[in-house]
Amino acid sequence: MSRTDVTHDPAARCWVPGAQAHPDFPVQNLPLGIFSPPGGEARGGVAIGDHILDLAAVAPLLEGQAATAAALGRQGTLNALLSAGSEALRALRHGLFALLTDPAREAAAQAALHRASDCTLHLPVAVSEYTDFYSGIHHAVNVGKLFRPDAPLLPNYKFVPIGYHGRASSVRVSGGDVLRPRGQVKAPDADMPMFGPCRRLDYEMEMAVWIGSGNAPGQPIPIGGASGHVAGLSILNDWSARDIQAWEYQPLGPFLAKNFHTSVSPWIVTMDALAPFRTAQPPRPEGDPAPLPYLLDEADQAAGAFGVTMEVHILTAAMRAAGLPPHRLSRGSMTAMYWTIAQLVAHHSSNGCNLRTGDLLGTGTLSGEMAESRGSLLELSEGGRQPIALPGGEQRTFLEDGDELIMTAFAQAPGFARIGFGECRGRIAPAP
Amino acid sequence: MSRTDVTHDPAARCWVPGAQAHPDFPVQNLPLGIFSPPGGEARGGVAIGDHILDLAAVAPLLEGQAATAAALGRQGTLNALLSAGSEALRALRHGLFALLTDPAREAAAQAALHRASDCTLHLPVAVSEYTDFYSGIHHAVNVGKLFRPDAPLLPNYKFVPIGYHGRASSVRVSGGDVLRPRGQVKAPDADMPMFGPCRRLDYEMEMAVWIGSGNAPGQPIPIGGASGHVAGLSILNDWSARDIQAWEYQPLGPFLAKNFHTSVSPWIVTMDALAPFRTAQPPRPEGDPAPLPYLLDEADQAAGAFGVTMEVHILTAAMRAAGLPPHRLSRGSMTAMYWTIAQLVAHHSSNGCNLRTGDLLGTGTLSGEMAESRGSLLELSEGGRQPIALPGGEQRTFLEDGDELIMTAFAQAPGFARIGFGECRGRIAPAP
Repeated sequence: MSRTDVTHDPAARCWVPGAQAHPDFPVQNLPLGIFSPPGGEARGGVAIGDHILDLAAVAPLLEGQAATAAALGRQGTLNALLSAGSEALRALRHGLFALLTDPAREAAAQAALHRASDCTLHLPVAVSEYTDFYSGIHHAVNVGKLFRPDAPLLPNYKFVPIGYHGRASSVRVSGGDVLRPRGQVKAPDADMPMFGPCRRLDYEMEMAVWIGSGNAPGQPIPIGGASGHVAGLSILNDWSARDIQAWEYQPLGPFLAKNFHTSVSPWIVTMDALAPFRTAQPPRPEGDPAPLPYLLDEADQAAGAFGVTMEVHILTAAMRAAGLPPHRLSRGSMTAMYWTIAQLVAHHSSNGCNLRTGDLLGTGTLSGEMAESRGSLLELSEGGRQPIALPGGEQRTFLEDGDELIMTAFAQAPGFARIGFGECRGRIAPAP
Repeated sequence: MSRTDVTHDPAARCWVPGAQAHPDFPVQNLPLGIFSPPGGEARGGVAIGDHILDLAAVAPLLEGQAATAAALGRQGTLNALLSAGSEALRALRHGLFALLTDPAREAAAQAALHRASDCTLHLPVAVSEYTDFYSGIHHAVNVGKLFRPDAPLLPNYKFVPIGYHGRASSVRVSGGDVLRPRGQVKAPDADMPMFGPCRRLDYEMEMAVWIGSGNAPGQPIPIGGASGHVAGLSILNDWSARDIQAWEYQPLGPFLAKNFHTSVSPWIVTMDALAPFRTAQPPRPEGDPAPLPYLLDEADQAAGAFGVTMEVHILTAAMRAAGLPPHRLSRGSMTAMYWTIAQLVAHHSSNGCNLRTGDLLGTGTLSGEMAESRGSLLELSEGGRQPIALPGGEQRTFLEDGDELIMTAFAQAPGFARIGFGECRGRIAPAP
């Protein structure tokens, strides 16, 4: 992977109608997902412009490792393909790129192409386990300030990539309803908690990291090789019930406040597609400790961060009725991560814990330093004290029934085609 | 299930040699597991005395639902069998009981019987997810006292069945080595943490709850039906690195301190086998709040607790060399649970979180009120301050390399045969 890789050539021309300079899915992206065409079964595909290319259907048009990898698209999840490893994913990328940029092969591949608007998108991976990190330092500071104004960050934050285990069964693909959960909540002035619908429902803007190949139990992944275990990234919305969380989380961390629903965008943007957008890990503020040796790697420090921009929009029921467009709540960047993805992987396995294909790691909420880059309503509304004004005269502290959240993300850099992640959507439905 | 159920008849006679009055596995128990006979593949089996009966091999000798259930033993995990539901498990139990107590059928079943000592036992279930609760109130008090002598229990404890998500990939069957993990630890007087082998390695005596059938997303399991979602119980040792835990756990809970290895005993004792040992939930101390309505069920209060006794033994390398027997560290009871198993299941799904077949719930460490019933070294040694004397002149605060932990559990009640869970073992090996 480098700037000389042909699949990153911004001048490459793709024969798929509408794919040229597509804001999300030009031929330089080629993200992987699971779709079903009208009347068909779920299968692996690649997004190209406003179309989806059926992987298994084009396998006969590819050769060698690319053909073998594409044939794994026959399955209803991407797990087998991701477990094939980064070399197989790279071969597939190159094979697909050659196919889609060669006008002479259009006729042969045409039948494998489906209009995306005709298809249903599914959860791309059978999620084996879900771990959520807390690597967004500005988020940690913003949330910490609500509890400890003078010392928002705990002493371990700059040494330990803080994370906790989440729930895999409730990870769902973008789209559809997000049921407002019920749970125990206790008002500050109440003697007793009560059980009822969450009243401080929030989102969290994160990125999803998909593990391609895992490690054997007891054999940690060294920081230098950690990136090679990652297949790609998606957008992640870690829906959160703040009132349930406040009452339940001591002493063992978040549980029911987080495990009712977690949304991921349907397309996995591969590490190879993101290669041009890797940047140096931002220097730590003066006085911050260096990472301990097991988390320190020169190449990772030089290119372990990702220049990915993330946006959150809201569309309320009233806005929808009035024909208003979604309103942007925030715009942030993955460079807000205090730890690189490689550091998260190395830390997770440093005690011998075995990661597996299909594991999902959340980065944690990625808020930036500025108010307009805060990745949750908890932060934007300062703990619910400062309502946010919306177009049409509404305001919000937390989410109301009918509110739809739309997260997007993209990467761009001079000399390269912009690539995007598509959308991660969800609309709040009343508690059942 | 009742005292009139023939499978609980203490006078029943089983034709398998040595099974009569076996302390763990008489014919009244019939726990399920996965084993491989010499040179054979992993398959489902039932423990009977010192033998294992091959489930699929006896399926042709059974009828109806019992035969169908037994045939699921052909698979290398019990997931399909557990997902068949409690009625299928009950039919299987009755079919096997009839077979094993009818001397006329000994000849036909003989070929399906293997000496347990010739077989290898495996993890019985492909663990989909692992949730660990904190339902042992005396444990919570003992641990809380180390941090907050005056107010050991947090205000939420008597309202919320506290739990957190653990790691499923590192759940392993009893036996073999438990590698001492490495991790970040910080001495109280140090400026910086360091990365190295855990020095406060501990065990936790828990019971494992296996989910048989799950629930649909967004559809909580009501407390009244929660018991029916549980297939059975095993012993669980939640190995814990106390020094790693102390440094990492704020603010999101335990992570690497717990996810390097979790041991379960190989046999699943079914809810039907345990029926005679169900007892009333011990009355809450005066002044404690009643459970909120979603956690309150009359039948569950009347018979939701389990009269199961648990013991922990240690065998150090020096004791082994000196030919000394294992030394008992503690003896406790499942009645130390502040919440019933049904309450744990109902709470877990109360926000719509979907449980699935193969989910593993840990009860949390089950310490009793008395010092001799403390279920971890953290408690027995009062945070490492009071060494425990062992036979042969050794002492321990935390586990040393070569130490083997042996957990056992059994249920007994007047008028019924005693049944046991077998062993949950693990021996500490040096950090790699």
